[in-house]
Amino acid sequence: MSEPSLGVFLDSARADIDRALDRFIPMPPDCPAIISEAMRYSVFAGGKRLRPILALAAADAVARRTAYGDPIAARALATPAACAIELIHTYSLIHDDLPAMDNDTLRRGRPTLHVVYGDGIAILAGDGLHAEAFTLMAREPSTTEAHIVARKIRAVRIIGAAAGPSGMVGGQAIDLQAAGQAPGHSLTLDGEGLRRMHAQKTGALIRAAAVSGAVMAGGADDVVEAIARYATELGLAFQIVDDILDVEGDAAQLGKTAGKDAAAAKPTYPALFGVDKSRKMAAMCVEHANLALVDGRLTDGWLGEIAQWVVGRKN
Amino acid sequence: MSEPSLGVFLDSARADIDRALDRFIPMPPDCPAIISEAMRYSVFAGGKRLRPILALAAADAVARRTAYGDPIAARALATPAACAIELIHTYSLIHDDLPAMDNDTLRRGRPTLHVVYGDGIAILAGDGLHAEAFTLMAREPSTTEAHIVARKIRAVRIIGAAAGPSGMVGGQAIDLQAAGQAPGHSLTLDGEGLRRMHAQKTGALIRAAAVSGAVMAGGADDVVEAIARYATELGLAFQIVDDILDVEGDAAQLGKTAGKDAAAAKPTYPALFGVDKSRKMAAMCVEHANLALVDGRLTDGWLGEIAQWVVGRKN
Repeated sequence: MSEPSLGVFLDSARADIDRALDRFIPMPPDCPAIISEAMRYSVFAGGKRLRPILALAAADAVARRTAYGDPIAARALATPAACAIELIHTYSLIHDDLPAMDNDTLRRGRPTLHVVYGDGIAILAGDGLHAEAFTLMAREPSTTEAHIVARKIRAVRIIGAAAGPSGMVGGQAIDLQAAGQAPGHSLTLDGEGLRRMHAQKTGALIRAAAVSGAVMAGGADDVVEAIARYATELGLAFQIVDDILDVEGDAAQLGKTAGKDAAAAKPTYPALFGVDKSRKMAAMCVEHANLALVDGRLTDGWLGEIAQWVVGRKN
Repeated sequence: MSEPSLGVFLDSARADIDRALDRFIPMPPDCPAIISEAMRYSVFAGGKRLRPILALAAADAVARRTAYGDPIAARALATPAACAIELIHTYSLIHDDLPAMDNDTLRRGRPTLHVVYGDGIAILAGDGLHAEAFTLMAREPSTTEAHIVARKIRAVRIIGAAAGPSGMVGGQAIDLQAAGQAPGHSLTLDGEGLRRMHAQKTGALIRAAAVSGAVMAGGADDVVEAIARYATELGLAFQIVDDILDVEGDAAQLGKTAGKDAAAAKPTYPALFGVDKSRKMAAMCVEHANLALVDGRLTDGWLGEIAQWVVGRKN
C-alpha cells in the first residue's frame, strides 16, 4: 500500500472529530455557561478518541470495499454518530468518577469534573452530554433523503441499546455490585461473569462505534456482521489490556491512579488469570478480530492496525 | 359532544401508557435485575402521566382535525414517544432527588430511589431510563415506511433537544445555581429569569410531549406550531401551580415535603408575585393556551380540558 501510516490516519481522524465535537457541544445563551464549560472540560480532556476513530475507520473500510464507495463521503456520514459515541463515553466517565460510584479525583492527569464543579453540576453535565448525543444524531447529517434517514434511526437504536441498561449502564451496575458498592446486592464474578460485565460495560459501546460507522456508510448486513465480530473481539482485548495497565502502569503515564482496581478489590483479568495468560488472551482476541476482517473482505483500511494499536498502548 | 368525560379519556390513556411502559422497560437477563427493579420502582411510582397523556391527546387532536384522520392509529403512533418522555421525566426526578442535587428522601409518598438502592444505583437507573427513552423511539413503531421513519427521527430530535443542555438539564443547572448549590457560580433570578429557568426545566419537556405527539400523528407545520404555543402556555401554568401548591399544599396530599422551596430559599412565583397574582398568571396562561387551540382548529379533543385539569390539580 502506498498509503500513509496509521499515525497519519489517527491524527486526521482526531482532528475531524475534535472539530465536529467543538461544533456540536451546545453554547450559551440557550445552554447555561456553567454546563457548556463543564461539558467542554470533560470532552476536551485529551482522550484517545478510540471509539469515534473506530466509527470513522469502519465507515472508511466499508466504502473501500464497495465498488464506487467514497471513503471521504463515508467518513462524513459517520462523523455525527462517532461524536455521539464520544459524548456518551465522556458522560459515562463523569458519572463513574462521582463519589457515589468510583470516587475518582484524577482523570487523564486533571481533577475530575465533580472536583472542579461539584457533584450536582457534574451529574447534570453528564446528563446533558447524554441527551445531546442523541439529538445530534437525529439532526446530522442534515438531510431528508430516506435512505440516510433510515441509517440514522438505525444508528440511534444501535447506540442507545449499547449505552443503556442492557449495555454500558448494566455493566457498570454489575461492576458496582461486584465491588460491594450496592448495599444488599453484592455479586462475586468468575471469569465468565467478568467477561460478561466488561462486554456490557466497555465492549458494547466499542462495538456500537464500529457498527454504527459501518451502518452510516451503507454497509450490507454481512459486512456489518463482520464489523460487529471484529469490534467485539477488539473490545475484549481493550479491556484486558486496561486491566494489565492498571497492574503494571505507573500513574504518570496512565494519567490516573494505578493499582486502584486491586485496592478496590475489583475483579480483573490479571487477578483471575495472571498477567502472562491475560496478555495471551488479548493477543488471541486480536487474531480473531483480524479473521473477522478477512471474512468480511475488510482488510483494506485501518481496522487491522487499530487492533494492534489498542493492545500495544501504554495508557 | 356525545363524548365520554375527560376522566374516561385520562383513565384510558394512562392504562395504555402503563401497559406500554411495562413492555418497554428492559428485563433480565440482558438487563441486570437490580437496574430493572430500580427503573420499575420509579417509573411505577404513581405519577400523573401528564406528559405522555399530553402526547396522546395532541396526536388525537391532530387526527380529529384531519379529514380521514384516525384517532386510534394516531394514538398508537405517538405511544412510543409518549413513553420515552415519561422515562426521561422519571430519570430527571431520580437525579434531582439525589443528595448532590435537591436531597429529597420522599417522592409521591415513598422513599426516593437512592434511599432504597444507594446513590450509585440511582444514578445508573436514571442513566438507563435516559438511554432507553431514545432506543425505544428509534425501535418503535417498528416499520420501514419512510414517512413514519422521518417522523421518528424528528421526534428524537425534538425530545432530545428538550431534555438536553439547552432544555431540561440547562434549567436544572440554573436552578442549582439559584439555590446556591453550584459553589462559585451562584445566580439571583428576577421574574424573567424565573420564567426562563422554568421554561427550560419543566416547560421544554411538556412542550416536547405535545409537539412530538402532533408530529407522530402527521400534523402539518402550522398545526404543530399551534400545539407548541398551547403547550408552552400549559407548561408555564403547570409550574406556577406547582409553586403555589408548594406554599399551600400539605405533605399528605402532595406526597412530598411541602414548603421545601421556601426552606431552600428557591425563587418561586408566590415569593416573587404573591399567591393571588400567581393564580391570575396561571389562569391567563390557560386562556392563551385555549386561543392557540382555536387558531389551530384543535378544539375538538381533550387538550382544552387538560389545561383546566392542570391548573385545577391539588397535587
